[in-house]
Amino acid sequence: MRARDLAADFPTVGLDTSAIEAARLLAGQNLPGLVVVDQQNRPATVLPGTQVLRLGVPAYCQDDPALARVIDEAHADVFLRGLEDRTVRECLPDQRRELPVVDPSATVLEIAALMARTRSPLVAVVGPDGSLAGVIILDTLLDRMLGT
Amino acid sequence: MRARDLAADFPTVGLDTSAIEAARLLAGQNLPGLVVVDQQNRPATVLPGTQVLRLGVPAYCQDDPALARVIDEAHADVFLRGLEDRTVRECLPDQRRELPVVDPSATVLEIAALMARTRSPLVAVVGPDGSLAGVIILDTLLDRMLGT
Repeated sequence: MRARDLAADFPTVGLDTSAIEAARLLAGQNLPGLVVVDQQNRPATVLPGTQVLRLGVPAYCQDDPALARVIDEAHADVFLRGLEDRTVRECLPDQRRELPVVDPSATVLEIAALMARTRSPLVAVVGPDGSLAGVIILDTLLDRMLGT
Repeated sequence: MRARDLAADFPTVGLDTSAIEAARLLAGQNLPGLVVVDQQNRPATVLPGTQVLRLGVPAYCQDDPALARVIDEAHADVFLRGLEDRTVRECLPDQRRELPVVDPSATVLEIAALMARTRSPLVAVVGPDGSLAGVIILDTLLDRMLGT
């Protein structure tokens, strides 16, 4: 079993998609994350669901639980405003991380090791020209490995 | 809206649960991760799904894609053997990470910031005695925040 046998079509977002649209897509489809593609349909980045949350959490709250706590309930819509005003591109972290991308011949063990290392529950499968050929999600991988 | 309003019951595993049982639970229920509890039902650790994968990926493959690649398809069951022989306790990383745990009065923004920071799509809600009161998953959080 190789990456090509596990890959499926999933909705993607572009760098200029609004952050609120990205969050709604994630929530509405119960996806574990989103692949962000450039205009040539090449993966620009892969956002695990937890990192999509970052799009809406004000920077000053991200690393300081005390600050998140003092913003009282009436202002939780600060989260939504953060999403509405920005594009995905504007919300990406400055620091680029290892992109969870494999080629179609990657083995199950290779995909599992990549997901574990990058902490990404989805990996993008890319063809020889670098364009997105499909997405493998953690559930699919586990189901196939365990036969559940 | 507070943590207590978002928390739900989810199956947990113990430190002495076999790793294969933990992986099957995760796969069968489409959970984003597992809370590992001690004998007093206090969260010992929270394992995002990607970290449950670690239980079955041989240590020598985890950080080296080249090694994972050379293990050919016929030996992918090395993954399953890694799971069958060990308990969850034996598979936990040596290095303890920040535990994604909140008290029942935590705000939505606090939970979102914690998920983003710890990269965990689930957080444990604990009562005053430290025992598990429920689990909040990313999907629930997003659905409530976005009204989807």
